[in-house]
Amino acid sequence: MVAVNIRGTTRLYAVLGDPVAQVRAPALLNPLFAQLGLDAVLVPVEATPAGLGDAVRGLTAVRNLDGLLVTVPHKMACRALADRVTEAAALSGSVNAMRRLPGGGWEGANFDGEGFVRGLRTAGHEPRGATVCLAGAGGAGSAMAVALLRAGAHVTVWDADPDRAASLVSRLAPHFPGRLAAAPGHVDADLAVNATPMGLRPGDPLPFDPAALRPGTLVADIIMSPRYTALLRAAREAGLPVHHGEPMLAEQIALYREFFGLG
Amino acid sequence: MVAVNIRGTTRLYAVLGDPVAQVRAPALLNPLFAQLGLDAVLVPVEATPAGLGDAVRGLTAVRNLDGLLVTVPHKMACRALADRVTEAAALSGSVNAMRRLPGGGWEGANFDGEGFVRGLRTAGHEPRGATVCLAGAGGAGSAMAVALLRAGAHVTVWDADPDRAASLVSRLAPHFPGRLAAAPGHVDADLAVNATPMGLRPGDPLPFDPAALRPGTLVADIIMSPRYTALLRAAREAGLPVHHGEPMLAEQIALYREFFGLG
Repeated sequence: MVAVNIRGTTRLYAVLGDPVAQVRAPALLNPLFAQLGLDAVLVPVEATPAGLGDAVRGLTAVRNLDGLLVTVPHKMACRALADRVTEAAALSGSVNAMRRLPGGGWEGANFDGEGFVRGLRTAGHEPRGATVCLAGAGGAGSAMAVALLRAGAHVTVWDADPDRAASLVSRLAPHFPGRLAAAPGHVDADLAVNATPMGLRPGDPLPFDPAALRPGTLVADIIMSPRYTALLRAAREAGLPVHHGEPMLAEQIALYREFFGLG
Repeated sequence: MVAVNIRGTTRLYAVLGDPVAQVRAPALLNPLFAQLGLDAVLVPVEATPAGLGDAVRGLTAVRNLDGLLVTVPHKMACRALADRVTEAAALSGSVNAMRRLPGGGWEGANFDGEGFVRGLRTAGHEPRGATVCLAGAGGAGSAMAVALLRAGAHVTVWDADPDRAASLVSRLAPHFPGRLAAAPGHVDADLAVNATPMGLRPGDPLPFDPAALRPGTLVADIIMSPRYTALLRAAREAGLPVHHGEPMLAEQIALYREFFGLG
């Protein structure tokens, strides 16, 4: 948390999610705005999937709003609402940041994957040549698959909806021959990653069971709050190393800063 | 200005205007939220008249947004967008605050008039029995006419658009027989009030010429920033007493607080 001054001239950024109470982007970006001397503020915006179109259309009409961050479950829907997307966003089929295009409309980008890979490396985990089992083929999962593959990892992806995993594989595999496959559930790997929203709500089932993983498997979660998700708690109890959600978001700050032309 | 902490759980309020840079509601309401220990923030939202419908529809879809304040030029349009209105808002045909109805939709209210009358009284100017020449029959002007009439004043209203003044008079006169009339321009009165947006933008013409008023006429402006509008500067130069825009907004805070159920 940080103190923010708001007045009539303040520029707005919004982070879109459902739920939104857990988002940490305001606590991370508002200090950056303050540090850069910008008269701007990032606020949380909760919209249901059914209300997302209206919400984005409405925010588009807000002339002092300069950018959107996007979190679950809206990343793929916002890909469709963007008028142009970066290559990483096109490959992943999802966006987590949108900025105004000069002629109107929105350009979508996705820094989830690059943020995650940078966070892994900062923590000493090199994805090149590693095998990764990725749970979740949604917005965040797709972006992370793209970045992990670009970083040289071998990725197996699964999803509660097998069609969604198959669709991701068929879309990406031609770009990364021999390094991406779908699986019906968890398979052995050096790194097991949760990129599903399971764990956001108390009582969510685990996306996979860490007790069934082989010793030494690094268990990572992209959920930032609670810091120890049920998955990471179970991994710790099983004696496995864990990687939290925070480093990914921290690494994204620099990427957002460049994308939005801040400071 | 006040320091505000923003996180994922923060509830939102928006003040809608065009322009919006001059609005002081964030600087007045955010301290109240903080003082009451509320995890809430009021942000400025600029939408053009053409974009207002989209903006309000979008903000309606924002589930962590609890209320709207409305300033020029959107007060009459928001009356039409409200699903229910208070009696003062119905009489004035305009709203400056909207809260969620339990079953969905918005209830509109208007505290401009009551805030203005309370501010006058706090400054020692009793409207009962006074003659008032009111410039502006738009959203704020209509609300102020209603409150001044309710307070027992005699009101003459004029507007750059004579049809708008005539329409206001024909709507309100039956409720306040013999105390409301339209005029083609400024007429002598105890109190001359600007309720038009003239003065918001540098270079705006004066809504009326204070040099032509009789000595002792109190000149009031509802524009809050700059504190000394061109009109009030001209009035001061003509040796007339002035009444600023701030007291009206300050008095509205208590009314907003009750309306939104704050603290």
